[in-house]
Amino acid sequence: MKKRYLLAPGPTPVPESTLLAMASPIIHHRTPQFSAIFKEAAGLLRYVFQTEEDVIMLAASGTGAMEASITNLFSPGDEVVAVNGGKFGERWGKLSEAYGLKVHWLQVEWGKAVEAGAVKKLLDKNPGIKGVLTQASETSTTVAHPVKEIAALTRDRDCLTIVDGITAVGVFDVPMDSWGIDVLVSGSQKAFMLPPGLAFISLSKKAWKFRESSKCPRFYFDLAKERKNLGKDTTAYTPAVSLITGLKESLRLIKEEGLEKVFARHDRLARAARAASLALGLKLLAPESPSNAATGIYVPDGVDGEKLVKFIRDEMGVTLAGGQDHLKGRILRIAHLGFTDTFDIIIAVSAIEMALHKFGHKVKFGSGVAAAEEILKEGYR
Amino acid sequence: MKKRYLLAPGPTPVPESTLLAMASPIIHHRTPQFSAIFKEAAGLLRYVFQTEEDVIMLAASGTGAMEASITNLFSPGDEVVAVNGGKFGERWGKLSEAYGLKVHWLQVEWGKAVEAGAVKKLLDKNPGIKGVLTQASETSTTVAHPVKEIAALTRDRDCLTIVDGITAVGVFDVPMDSWGIDVLVSGSQKAFMLPPGLAFISLSKKAWKFRESSKCPRFYFDLAKERKNLGKDTTAYTPAVSLITGLKESLRLIKEEGLEKVFARHDRLARAARAASLALGLKLLAPESPSNAATGIYVPDGVDGEKLVKFIRDEMGVTLAGGQDHLKGRILRIAHLGFTDTFDIIIAVSAIEMALHKFGHKVKFGSGVAAAEEILKEGYR
Repeated sequence: MKKRYLLAPGPTPVPESTLLAMASPIIHHRTPQFSAIFKEAAGLLRYVFQTEEDVIMLAASGTGAMEASITNLFSPGDEVVAVNGGKFGERWGKLSEAYGLKVHWLQVEWGKAVEAGAVKKLLDKNPGIKGVLTQASETSTTVAHPVKEIAALTRDRDCLTIVDGITAVGVFDVPMDSWGIDVLVSGSQKAFMLPPGLAFISLSKKAWKFRESSKCPRFYFDLAKERKNLGKDTTAYTPAVSLITGLKESLRLIKEEGLEKVFARHDRLARAARAASLALGLKLLAPESPSNAATGIYVPDGVDGEKLVKFIRDEMGVTLAGGQDHLKGRILRIAHLGFTDTFDIIIAVSAIEMALHKFGHKVKFGSGVAAAEEILKEGYR
Repeated sequence: MKKRYLLAPGPTPVPESTLLAMASPIIHHRTPQFSAIFKEAAGLLRYVFQTEEDVIMLAASGTGAMEASITNLFSPGDEVVAVNGGKFGERWGKLSEAYGLKVHWLQVEWGKAVEAGAVKKLLDKNPGIKGVLTQASETSTTVAHPVKEIAALTRDRDCLTIVDGITAVGVFDVPMDSWGIDVLVSGSQKAFMLPPGLAFISLSKKAWKFRESSKCPRFYFDLAKERKNLGKDTTAYTPAVSLITGLKESLRLIKEEGLEKVFARHDRLARAARAASLALGLKLLAPESPSNAATGIYVPDGVDGEKLVKFIRDEMGVTLAGGQDHLKGRILRIAHLGFTDTFDIIIAVSAIEMALHKFGHKVKFGSGVAAAEEILKEGYR
């Protein structure tokens, strides 16, 4: 008899009304009935992306939309910058290389944000660069990159700012149009409070221009074809019907709460997670430019982080995330994006307090929770 | 965007696998298919009641089974003792009076358990008394009454011990057969981890003898008729099909965990709730004979308990219970029965810490949680 709590940076918990919407009988996708759901979801996606442009839905995980960004906008041999400060930055570069692009790898220490100045230097030195590929939130290191500054750098160049906002859109402010982001990508299983299976992508007018001359091979992820279908309230290929039915409900919940309040909630939860970690004497992975999607914490010396995460998941029922690559076993990550609230943070912190104690680390019980409560109480009138 | 946590002493949370079982398409009740489910549930009920006798399922709330105890075993004019130490003890007496029984009201201060000696004195003084009606767990005052001692008093008399175990069966040890309890009653929405709508009742051989001479009017709650049907794996009247389908699953979960572990879990959660309350400087309602089903706590002077419970429910999403009658506004009750685990206690205590602070009461954040964690950590290897 164990209750389960999902506090990993994706998939994230799905609200009850969305689960119930997805449990509705499957309807056919070439019907006015489905088109009405689709159209409403498409409209609400623009609100969350903060854009006037179309937001295309793909039956794919987020990586599918990342791939679509490359294959629809570039040609083999094109030069791009890949901001590589974690697993997902690395993915931008590998994806580009898979399609024959020339990648300028911009290495960033894990846990640090890229400096816009470093991007500028690369662009100045290599005027042929056609795109800067970055994360808004690098999930593997819990870092937020300076997307606004990067977008400002490419605005007057023949170059696109392409942003993986998979754990950023709906978490913190990444206003696509006003910041001049050319491509913004996200995925269903994050702040959209849905199961995995849908990817979202929106292109600026400048990006659509790039589409015209792009020569990468593509078929399923043909964004021009999808845009044409979107105009007719449908998709080119079979859409994930139940996920889109759920999307409409999750987006309705986001709209009802209001983006500003959604961002404030994520900010409050993130600050509480960071304060609790520090109160427990644990070092933050990204102290300077943390993402509000998740909080990375170094496990204390002498504690095996992999075993700790496994214990918290299997014995305590709380699913946090560990570290990847060279951070494997050295960190744990508390996610606080999507359908998360005050007591998710309390649960995570309390679980960490008891688990560290079990692992022989000296912990003052309640000290992390106390620091979290000091911040979380702001959430109540 | 608020998550909801149900920590009231009924209804209690329902596990996912039980919810899914109840979401199965409705089957007809006069079929071998339903009889198989019914039979399995009936067998597992005996395990939870710790009895060799039949446990009858009624489509009713617990009060229905209390009424069945009176109408099936007594006649107008019969004398009974009603242990009246709270709302539910009072109900025993009122129910008996409604059917013309003569009630010896045994008044007990709210928050205290009845003394078996007081019951003995009444029985000795009034040899005509046919039944002692008591709660095993008086939910309104979070008290456990000494059922074992009471049952020992009636064993050799022409008198039954009739126990409302609605918030006791499946929470702590109330072994019907070995303690010689004559009637044991419970309800679905408590430790059985189901929605409300089912009541359970089991009678000893001695109680079935009383059934033969009882003259109270009855029809729907005719236990002899139900027992006959139970022998044919069915019910006299239409059973609550989906609830019984869910019951089978919830009982399977209880069996899988094992009664001993179920009791240990409730004991751990209850001790944690009490320790947390004391650490926060809050007085327990039932310090001497607390029930492991729920913990009653006095709210501090100057704090309006009704407003506090409302704030915790409406603002924080956590449903606790307040007080009834003269305790209205003076106490709150944290329930920890049924599908509850470590983090339900943490959530309740953390919510109380933040809410008391909001209400102007001086609280050391984390101090209640720390006391709870000291005990809850026992639950992990």
